[in-house]
Amino acid sequence: MIEGADLIQAAAFLGAGLAMGLGAIGPGVGEGMVGAKACEAIGKNPSEAGLLTRTMLVGQAVSESTGIYSLVIALLLLFVV
Amino acid sequence: MIEGADLIQAAAFLGAGLAMGLGAIGPGVGEGMVGAKACEAIGKNPSEAGLLTRTMLVGQAVSESTGIYSLVIALLLLFVV
Amino acid sequence: MIEGADLIQAAAFLGAGLAMGLGAIGPGVGEGMVGAKACEAIGKNPSEAGLLTRTMLVGQAVSESTGIYSLVIALLLLFVV
Amino acid sequence: MIEGADLIQAAAFLGAGLAMGLGAIGPGVGEGMVGAKACEAIGKNPSEAGLLTRTMLVGQAVSESTGIYSLVIALLLLFVV
Amino acid sequence: MIEGADLIQAAAFLGAGLAMGLGAIGPGVGEGMVGAKACEAIGKNPSEAGLLTRTMLVGQAVSESTGIYSLVIALLLLFVV
Amino acid sequence: MIEGADLIQAAAFLGAGLAMGLGAIGPGVGEGMVGAKACEAIGKNPSEAGLLTRTMLVGQAVSESTGIYSLVIALLLLFVV
Amino acid sequence: MIEGADLIQAAAFLGAGLAMGLGAIGPGVGEGMVGAKACEAIGKNPSEAGLLTRTMLVGQAVSESTGIYSLVIALLLLFVV
Amino acid sequence: MIEGADLIQAAAFLGAGLAMGLGAIGPGVGEGMVGAKACEAIGKNPSEAGLLTRTMLVGQAVSESTGIYSLVIALLLLFVV
Amino acid sequence: MIEGADLIQAAAFLGAGLAMGLGAIGPGVGEGMVGAKACEAIGKNPSEAGLLTRTMLVGQAVSESTGIYSLVIALLLLFVV
Amino acid sequence: MIEGADLIQAAAFLGAGLAMGLGAIGPGVGEGMVGAKACEAIGKNPSEAGLLTRTMLVGQAVSESTGIYSLVIALLLLFVV
Amino acid sequence: MIEGADLIQAAAFLGAGLAMGLGAIGPGVGEGMVGAKACEAIGKNPSEAGLLTRTMLVGQAVSESTGIYSLVIALLLLFVV
Amino acid sequence: MIEGADLIQAAAFLGAGLAMGLGAIGPGVGEGMVGAKACEAIGKNPSEAGLLTRTMLVGQAVSESTGIYSLVIALLLLFVV
Amino acid sequence: MIEGADLIQAAAFLGAGLAMGLGAIGPGVGEGMVGAKACEAIGKNPSEAGLLTRTMLVGQAVSESTGIYSLVIALLLLFVV
Amino acid sequence: MIEGADLIQAAAFLGAGLAMGLGAIGPGVGEGMVGAKACEAIGKNPSEAGLLTRTMLVGQAVSESTGIYSLVIALLLLFVV
Repeated sequence: MIEGADLIQAAAFLGAGLAMGLGAIGPGVGEGMVGAKACEAIGKNPSEAGLLTRTMLVGQAVSESTGIYSLVIALLLLFVV
Repeated sequence: MIEGADLIQAAAFLGAGLAMGLGAIGPGVGEGMVGAKACEAIGKNPSEAGLLTRTMLVGQAVSESTGIYSLVIALLLLFVV
Repeated sequence: MIEGADLIQAAAFLGAGLAMGLGAIGPGVGEGMVGAKACEAIGKNPSEAGLLTRTMLVGQAVSESTGIYSLVIALLLLFVV
Repeated sequence: MIEGADLIQAAAFLGAGLAMGLGAIGPGVGEGMVGAKACEAIGKNPSEAGLLTRTMLVGQAVSESTGIYSLVIALLLLFVV
Repeated sequence: MIEGADLIQAAAFLGAGLAMGLGAIGPGVGEGMVGAKACEAIGKNPSEAGLLTRTMLVGQAVSESTGIYSLVIALLLLFVV
Repeated sequence: MIEGADLIQAAAFLGAGLAMGLGAIGPGVGEGMVGAKACEAIGKNPSEAGLLTRTMLVGQAVSESTGIYSLVIALLLLFVV
Repeated sequence: MIEGADLIQAAAFLGAGLAMGLGAIGPGVGEGMVGAKACEAIGKNPSEAGLLTRTMLVGQAVSESTGIYSLVIALLLLFVV
Repeated sequence: MIEGADLIQAAAFLGAGLAMGLGAIGPGVGEGMVGAKACEAIGKNPSEAGLLTRTMLVGQAVSESTGIYSLVIALLLLFVV
Repeated sequence: MIEGADLIQAAAFLGAGLAMGLGAIGPGVGEGMVGAKACEAIGKNPSEAGLLTRTMLVGQAVSESTGIYSLVIALLLLFVV
Repeated sequence: MIEGADLIQAAAFLGAGLAMGLGAIGPGVGEGMVGAKACEAIGKNPSEAGLLTRTMLVGQAVSESTGIYSLVIALLLLFVV
Repeated sequence: MIEGADLIQAAAFLGAGLAMGLGAIGPGVGEGMVGAKACEAIGKNPSEAGLLTRTMLVGQAVSESTGIYSLVIALLLLFVV
Repeated sequence: MIEGADLIQAAAFLGAGLAMGLGAIGPGVGEGMVGAKACEAIGKNPSEAGLLTRTMLVGQAVSESTGIYSLVIALLLLFVV
Repeated sequence: MIEGADLIQAAAFLGAGLAMGLGAIGPGVGEGMVGAKACEAIGKNPSEAGLLTRTMLVGQAVSESTGIYSLVIALLLLFVV
Repeated sequence: MIEGADLIQAAAFLGAGLAMGLGAIGPGVGEGMVGAKACEAIGKNPSEAGLLTRTMLVGQAVSESTGIYSLVIALLLLFVV
């Protein structure tokens, strides 16, 4: 027999899957854009490679944040809740 | 037996997953656009790297806001409600 | 047993998740466009960085508004209703 | 037991979430386009910054209108109906 | 017990949410295109700012019309029907 | 108890919401394209502003037609049927 | 009690809403493309405005046809069937 | 009581709505492309307006064909079947 | 009472609607591309109008084929099966 | 009463509709691309019209293949199975 | 009465329709891209038509492979399983 | 009567159809991009046709891999499981 | 009768199909982009073909990784779980 | 009979499939963009191949992260939970 606690757990697991699956689309594409433009810029101006790599990493780190939020929500749905 | 409180909790968990999963798409892509253009601009004009990095971070921070709203709603759905 | 009040609450939680999740897509992408063009413009014309940052922030603030509306609706669905 | 009034209320809450969530996509993206082009134009022609900022705000205000309609419908679904 | 009148009301509320939510996407994006091009044009030709703002507002007003139709249908679904 | 007439009415209301909501996407975007190009053209050739505004309005009026058809169908679903 | 005739009528109303709602997307966008290019062309070559407006209207009229087919099907679903 | 013939009729009506609604998207957009390019071409080369209008109409007529097939299927679903 | 043959017929009618509705999207857009490029090419090189119209018609005819397959399947689902 | 064979047949008919409807999108668009580029190329280089038409037909024929596979599967679902 | 074997068969038929329908989208569009570029290249460099046609056919053949996999899976679902 | 083993089998067949159908979209489009650029490059630089064909085939083979994974999973779902 | 273990197995099979089917889209398209640009670059600069092929393979290998993760999850869902 | 623990397990498996399947789209496309631009840049500036390959790998590694998060969530859903 299905108890209410089971339904909650099932919903939490489905929700975790959706949160991480959908939440990986945006940052994945966004970070790719940053990396693509960084490669292009370094190819044109290699003497600034260090500066550009640093900028790329900072830009990607911020874009990564929403992916990490998704991870946090998914982990909370799996373990804490 | 499924009680009403269980249905509410299940809906809250699914809602949290959707809020964070969908809510990470927009900021992830948007911040990627900002970072991409910042890398391009620094590659062309490296002497303004500090200024451009600052602008990039400000622009990304605002774009991040809707991602943080999604995180807040998801956390509220998990813990407070 | 599922009471009507439970169904209402469950619908409110799902609705809150959808409102914030979907509502974060548009502003996130839109603000990213503004920030991207601002970085590009500052890279070309750094002497107007202050003016451009101000314009960027104003433009993003207006674009943010629909994200904030979504937040308001989601919070109302969570707490007030 | 689920009464009809509960079903109505649940539908109103789901409808409010969808109205605001979907309704924030268009204005968010549209206002971002306006802001992006305004930044670009100011970067090229900074002496007209005041004029361009004013035009940007007017253009965004009109684009905002459908977002506000969505907010109105969502609030009506929450409180008045 | 769910009466037919309740089902009708619930359908009307869901329909109102969908009508306004979906109906805000098109005008929001379309008006953004108009405003974006208007900013671009004023930046290139500021002496015609008045003429261009007027054209922008007329173009946006027509594009707004389908958003207003959606608002009308949503309000009719909420109050009159 | 749900009568058949109630089901019909509910379907008509949902259908009206979908007809207007979906039907506003195309004209809204299409009219925005027309208005955007008209602003661009006037910015380049302001002496033809009257002619271009007229053309824009004619082009938008035709594009508006499918939006009006959607409004007609939605109103028929609400009141006449 | 729900009779078969009620189910038919409900399906016809939903079908009418979908036919008109979806059917307005294509012509609305397509006619917008025609109008946009016509404005652009008139801006470049205003002496041919009459010819271009005529071409625009003919091109839009053909594109309109599928929107009218959708209207016809929707009206048939509402009244004749 | 719902008879089988009613289910068939309901499916036919829903099918007719989907056939015409979806079937109007492709031709509507495609014909718009043809008309847009024809306007552009006439603006550049007005002395060939007759030839270009003829080509546009032929190209649109072929593109229209799938829209007409959709109309035929929808009408068959409404009346003949 | 719903007999199996009724279910089959209903599925065939829904299937016919989907086959023709979806199947009209691809050819409609594809033929529009062909026609658009043909108009552009004739505008640049009107002396080859006959050749280009012929090429356009051949190219559209092949692209039409999948639309015709869809029509065939839809008709088979309506009448033969 | 619904027999298993009826369910199978209904699934086969729905599957046939989906196979042909979805399967016509890709080839229709793809062949349109080929035809569009062929028209463009002939307009620039009419002396190679025969060669280009042949290439176009070969390219379209290969692209057609997946549309034909869809037709085959749909026909098999209708008649053989 | 519906036996398990009937459910399996129905699922296999629906699966076959989806496999072929969805599986035809990618190769159809991809092969169209190859053919389009081949026509463009031959138009510019007709003396290499044989080489380009061969390259086009090889490129399309590889792209075709996933379409053939889909056909194989669909046929297996129809006959072998 | 439906046994559990039947449900498993039905799910496996539907899953196989989805795996192959969806899994053919990405490689089909991706390989088309590779082939398109290879044709373009050979048209510009025919003396390197062998090298470019080899590169194209290597690039397509890697892109093909995910299509083959999909085929493997689909076959496993059909026969081994 | 359907046991719980059957439901689990069915869900695992559907999940495996979705994981591999959806998971093949991203890498397939992404690797295609890499291969396309590599062909373009080799066509322009054939003397660096070895270096470019190596870069292409490295870039594709990383992009492949998420496809392999999907394969691993699908295989785990089929055999280990 | 279906126990609650079975429902939980089934939801976990479906969630794992969705998390990995959807989560592979973003990184796959994003890494492809990085790799594509890296190949382009190396083709133009082969003397910086080492630097560009390093930048590409760093950029792809960050973009990969959300794919790895998806893998982690999927594995947790399979084994730990």
